[in-house]
Order: sequence, then C-alpha cells, then structure tokens
Amino acid sequence: MSNGAAPSDGEFELIRRYFTSQSVHHAATLLGIGDDCALLRCVDGSGLAITTDTMVAGVHFLPEVDPRDLGHKILAVNLSDLAAVGALPTWVTLCLTLPAAEPSWLEGFSAGFFALAQRYGVELIGGDTTRGPLSITVQAMGLIPAHQALRRSGAGVGDLIFVTGRLGSAGLGLKILTGEACSIDSEPVARLLRPEPRVAVGQALVGNATACIDVSDGFAADLGHILAASGAGAAIEWERLPLSPAVRQYVAETGDWRLPLVAGDDYELCFTLPERRLPDLEASSRDWDCSVHQVGVIEEQQGLRIRREGRLQDLPLSGYDHFNKGQQCAPKSRLPSTNS
Amino acid sequence: MSNGAAPSDGEFELIRRYFTSQSVHHAATLLGIGDDCALLRCVDGSGLAITTDTMVAGVHFLPEVDPRDLGHKILAVNLSDLAAVGALPTWVTLCLTLPAAEPSWLEGFSAGFFALAQRYGVELIGGDTTRGPLSITVQAMGLIPAHQALRRSGAGVGDLIFVTGRLGSAGLGLKILTGEACSIDSEPVARLLRPEPRVAVGQALVGNATACIDVSDGFAADLGHILAASGAGAAIEWERLPLSPAVRQYVAETGDWRLPLVAGDDYELCFTLPERRLPDLEASSRDWDCSVHQVGVIEEQQGLRIRREGRLQDLPLSGYDHFNKGQQCAPKSRLPSTNS
Repeated sequence: MSNGAAPSDGEFELIRRYFTSQSVHHAATLLGIGDDCALLRCVDGSGLAITTDTMVAGVHFLPEVDPRDLGHKILAVNLSDLAAVGALPTWVTLCLTLPAAEPSWLEGFSAGFFALAQRYGVELIGGDTTRGPLSITVQAMGLIPAHQALRRSGAGVGDLIFVTGRLGSAGLGLKILTGEACSIDSEPVARLLRPEPRVAVGQALVGNATACIDVSDGFAADLGHILAASGAGAAIEWERLPLSPAVRQYVAETGDWRLPLVAGDDYELCFTLPERRLPDLEASSRDWDCSVHQVGVIEEQQGLRIRREGRLQDLPLSGYDHFNKGQQCAPKSRLPSTNS
Repeated sequence: MSNGAAPSDGEFELIRRYFTSQSVHHAATLLGIGDDCALLRCVDGSGLAITTDTMVAGVHFLPEVDPRDLGHKILAVNLSDLAAVGALPTWVTLCLTLPAAEPSWLEGFSAGFFALAQRYGVELIGGDTTRGPLSITVQAMGLIPAHQALRRSGAGVGDLIFVTGRLGSAGLGLKILTGEACSIDSEPVARLLRPEPRVAVGQALVGNATACIDVSDGFAADLGHILAASGAGAAIEWERLPLSPAVRQYVAETGDWRLPLVAGDDYELCFTLPERRLPDLEASSRDWDCSVHQVGVIEEQQGLRIRREGRLQDLPLSGYDHFNKGQQCAPKSRLPSTNS
C-alpha cells in the first residue's frame, strides 16, 4: 500500500525512521520509545509507566462487534502493556472517534470499558470525543518502583521461557469469525473479543523475571523482540506450548501447527526467569487467574529455534504488519518505534 | 446524526453522560475529567498535567493539508491545553492512523511535529501506528506545582478578563480555505494552520490568574466554560476584542461581528485576573511572543453580556458540536466530559 521505501525495510521500519531521532531528552525519562511502556520518574522514586494503543474499525475489529466487547478490549490491550512492565494500572484517558453518537452503542461501550476499569482500579481522567470513522485510542498509566520495571532486554542464557494462559486461541477466534475455520467451542472467539490482561502475573514478576513482553503480534514475533533486545537466542519445544482444546483440534485437523506461534491478539505474557527464582514465582501463583507454562530456554546462539516432533522447524520471525497486508481485522499490532 | 437522546441535550451531553459516573478515584488524582487537563500528584509535590486531543481528516482538517502544518497543529493544540493550566510541556505520545505509509507525508508530518516539540522542549516517549482512515491522537504531559495549576473555576467578581493574541483569525482562515471569504492577507490561514500555543503566558499566569482556558471552541463558548465553572457572569466590550486587520476588514465588509466571538481554533488563552495582580503580569510580559488585551470584566450577574456600539447584543453561548452539524473541517472541538 505504500511506495518509495526500500521494500525490505517494511513499512513499520519506514515509519520508525521518522520518529526516532529527536533532540529533546528529559532526565526524568527513564525509558522512552521502544519497550512495552514509556517510564517516567515520578512520586518519590516511583515510576509512571505509560502506554497507548489505537484500534480502528475494519482493521482491528469487525465493525459489527458488540460495543461492550470493544470497550473491554481497548482497555484490556493497554492494561496488558502495563502488565508487561509490572506496573499497577492506575489512570487512563480515552479518545473516541465516532460516526454518530448512538445511545445504545455508547451504553454498551462504556459498560464494557468501566467493568474492566473497575476490576483493576483504573480511573478515567480525561479524553476527547470527535466525529469521524470509528476508532478508539486509549492511553493507560500505571505505577511501578522506578528501577524495577520489567524490560525486554534482560533475558540471560539459561533462563527459562514462560508464557501465561494459552496461545493461538484469539487467532483461531478470528478465523472462526471470518469463516476460515469452524468450532463449536466458544473459547477462541471469547479470547479474541475479551482478552484478559495478566496484571497479577506482571506484578509478581517484578524483581523475578529477567525480561517480559505481552504477546500481541504472535508468540514467535514477541519472543523475538525479547531475543533482539537481550542479544540472545532461544529454543522452544512446540509440544510444551499451552493450547486450548479447540486450538489443539484445529491443529490436528488442518496441520497448521504454526498458528499458536504466529497468530496475534492473545495478550498473554511471555517472560524469562532464572531457574533459581522459580520458588518465588510459585509462591505468588495462587492468586493468579491463569496458568503459566515453561515452553523453552534462552540460549547463547542467536535466533529462535522451534523443535516439533524432535525436529527443528522453519518459522519466519516477523510479526503482523498492517501496512504490508491487505487483510482486515488483523491482530492489534504495534509499531516498534514506539511503545507497543 | 444520532437518535434516541432528548434533542435539547446535545450529543456531547449525551456522550458525557456515559463517561462521568465511575467508582474508581485515586488519592493522587488532583483533577480528573472536566478541565483543560487532568492533574496527577507526582514528583515531590509537583503535578503532572495530562491532556489529549484527536484530529480527524475531513473533520478537523482538510485532507489535502500540508503534513508539516498538520504535525505542527496536532502538537500545538495539545500544548495549548497545557498552557491553559500553566504547565511546562515535557512529554508527548503520538498515535497515528494512516491509510498508507507515504515517505513524503511522514517526512513532512514528523518535521512539523518535531520542530514545535523542540521549541518547547517536549520529548516524544511513545505511541502507536495503525492503518486506517487518517486520524491523529496526541497526549501531552507537563509539569506544574501540584496545587498551582490554573483552573476554570476561580474567576471572582470584579476580575478583569484578558485574551492573548487575536480572535477570529483562524475562523476567517477556514472561511478563506473553503471559499466562503476572500483576503489577500495570509495571516488568517496561517493562524488556522499553525496556531501558536501560549506556553510562556500560561506559565506567567501561575499564581496570578484566577481562571484560565484555551480558546478552541470560540471565545464566547470558552469564556462561558469559565463562567459556568466559577458561578459568575461577565460583560465583554466588543470594541476591545483584539482583531487582525484581515478580520477587521471582513467584519466591516460583511457585518458578521460575531465571527471573533464564535469561531473556534484560535488557541489563544482567555484568563481572569484581579486588577491588583496586573503589575506582576506586566513584569513578565516582556518575554511573550504575543499581545494580551483586557476585553471585559467578571460580574455577579450570571450569563455573558456582549456590548457593541453601546448596546447589548444577543449571542448564543454554545460552542461547536461535531455531532449536531454536518459541516466539515470544523474547529478542534472537545467533549466537556473529558479534558478539553
């Protein structure tokens, strides 16, 4: 859809180029562009983590989606970014662009939004409402001790690789909604429409995990971000990937074993941990509403190696790129140049 | 464009209703929904002022606008909100929704954006880029001593009413661009496309002004917000309104004396001040890049009274409402329920 850029760059790289060279840097900016959140020094050694995400009708969600689900999801994907740095969600702003002010839509959207906001103690402090093609931008802010925020860059050789919940469910949900796949199981569509931010896990990881990211672009791509930032590689055992019965059945019937590795929108956490920290993590796991599974290990050799049925598999590491694909209703992908 | 709401409510009021009842309130939230910025307690008694604005192609700007002007303006309108509370602009996030990644567009937009960011020492710390109909959301954050932020609510009877710069220029600029008016003077269009946030004035007002707002929806409507929040009324002398030669000529030729009172997008500051504080203000005015004029006085009697040629004039107080008008490329209007 674009032109003029070297095709190998990818459009995200093109955009990134225009927004990463600036001359202003404040001492209180602990972390700027490039991780799941920005981090500002704030409140007596505490840090303020900031993230923002836009969702556009026809690109990130089907226009006919239940507004209650949409209100939930736009907040959930932002809280997922806060979870990925271990921050406690606290404040949020909401910018709504609407073709019209429909009471039934507004009622559903706000109900879904505030139900999740209340569950995590998030206060709406401002925003903007404008007329235009349906699109929603949320900025979420959370607190974390300034120098304890989880990063993508700390994974060390020998660290174990974990993932929360299950992989590929949201991707299968999208296939079901668009008629590419069938299932009598409601779990995949539910996971696509109402992802659950892993806030409790994220907070338990503070001081324990060496690296963390939320799985929005696909597990392989997001783990790839950890590997790139940490200057390491990894080996993943496919058989260890946590899959729902519906995804397991889909893989068995279609042979599409890549789905749980490449499908986006799961909003699980992927993190790395030295084995000696496992007892600390297990101690806090009683409070979690999701499972956590070890799926691989960080290795010195660069790159990501997927082992399935005992053999190394070929898998490109790239994530979803809005600008290079015509597909509609893609996973909520993000720009590497900015918080994602 | 909507339905089901009592027509007298207005669509903004309808939307506001769904987003102002929430159960979560944090002690560190000094100011939530309803002023120019939200304000969080932060950094040893300092406050973090937060504002956010969206601009949509075809609604807030003509699609063919120079991307350099657009990059300037989306940041300027957010810095104007920070100026209105007296905050020092510090950080910004940028969410871009683009139909395609065009290098020439990106280059122009980022150049306009960063030129203004650099001028005011604003650091881009994150954002999101997605594909979709052209729309831009910026969230700007600035620092101000926590309990000194300027509000809309402090205007007292007898306070003088001031406005920075000139009124109506941006409104005339829009008329020129859309062919409704002609002028050989480039000032109106320049003011529409590249408003100048009154950051220095806003900072000088801290500790001096009793109320402040930025003029985005039209002078009468925005002064009306001060009056409503302060529980007061005001008298304005039309002849005191600061007008550019082009606006003065337009009014003389068309008789449309309401333009400088109702046209939006000027992004000047309107503030109130007790007369005894005038010397403090004048002392700092040497550093300003704009004029400041007294245009009226706060009175006990509710409502806004405009005197022109010695007679009271009739002027509705309402601002621009996206959802009730079909007009394209309207002023950057904001929802009263959220920061504006």
